[in-house]
Amino acid sequence: MAVTSRADAQWSDGLASGSGSVALASGAGEFSMTWKARSEGVDGATTPEELLAAAHSSCFSMALTHELEGNGTPPAWVKTSAQVSFVPGTGVTASVLTVAAKVPGIADEDFQRIAAAAKDGCPVSQALAGVEITLSGATLMD
Amino acid sequence: MAVTSRADAQWSDGLASGSGSVALASGAGEFSMTWKARSEGVDGATTPEELLAAAHSSCFSMALTHELEGNGTPPAWVKTSAQVSFVPGTGVTASVLTVAAKVPGIADEDFQRIAAAAKDGCPVSQALAGVEITLSGATLMD
Repeated sequence: MAVTSRADAQWSDGLASGSGSVALASGAGEFSMTWKARSEGVDGATTPEELLAAAHSSCFSMALTHELEGNGTPPAWVKTSAQVSFVPGTGVTASVLTVAAKVPGIADEDFQRIAAAAKDGCPVSQALAGVEITLSGATLMD
Repeated sequence: MAVTSRADAQWSDGLASGSGSVALASGAGEFSMTWKARSEGVDGATTPEELLAAAHSSCFSMALTHELEGNGTPPAWVKTSAQVSFVPGTGVTASVLTVAAKVPGIADEDFQRIAAAAKDGCPVSQALAGVEITLSGATLMD
């Protein structure tokens, strides 16, 4: 069964002169956006790339949990950051994942292997086939 | 200059038994997630796919605005919905865009051509190279 999720965006006036917003159809949030924030980086304003980072970090956390369960070493917790880069005129260039996890009873080499597999297998990684995806660090925590 | 946007996710316990959340580093929002919501569809809960839909609909709105400005026919407004589908075990399968816009002085055939170009050129469309992307409708409004 396919599950379909929706969001609704609007933009008024020009790209540089105007502004827009996007709402999650679930009601979980609505965000305003400007081109200046996206193209120059402005603290406190969201961007399409921040939303991609949210999708990627959450999907990877689920995928890693699933892979660790399959290994017989379920995690107590997983924490993932994603950093997505945008170059105006070029596009979305990279998503860099960094993960820390508490996984009782696993050897670090197994954790590294499983984290790399989760990076490749994560559905959002596969969707983002046009972007260079790297796992910059995977750290086991006590 | 690359602009980098970040989000931070966490998951506790198993995929089916546990739950997680993701926060936008800009502070614009934090969302809780469950596997049940993602795999079965639950009203009122966000999913990684809803966040992809938000990224895609907002990026397309900006791209179309930019293309219409380049055509000498800037829009008064653009409204875009994106619907992103997830099939458990398969992945993110599709993003369907639907747009309505008020564009003074443009012929419909030009609007259709430019909307199709914006679908292809939108940076998030290019990032989502692993997903089938369609423009299901582009409507000029008075």
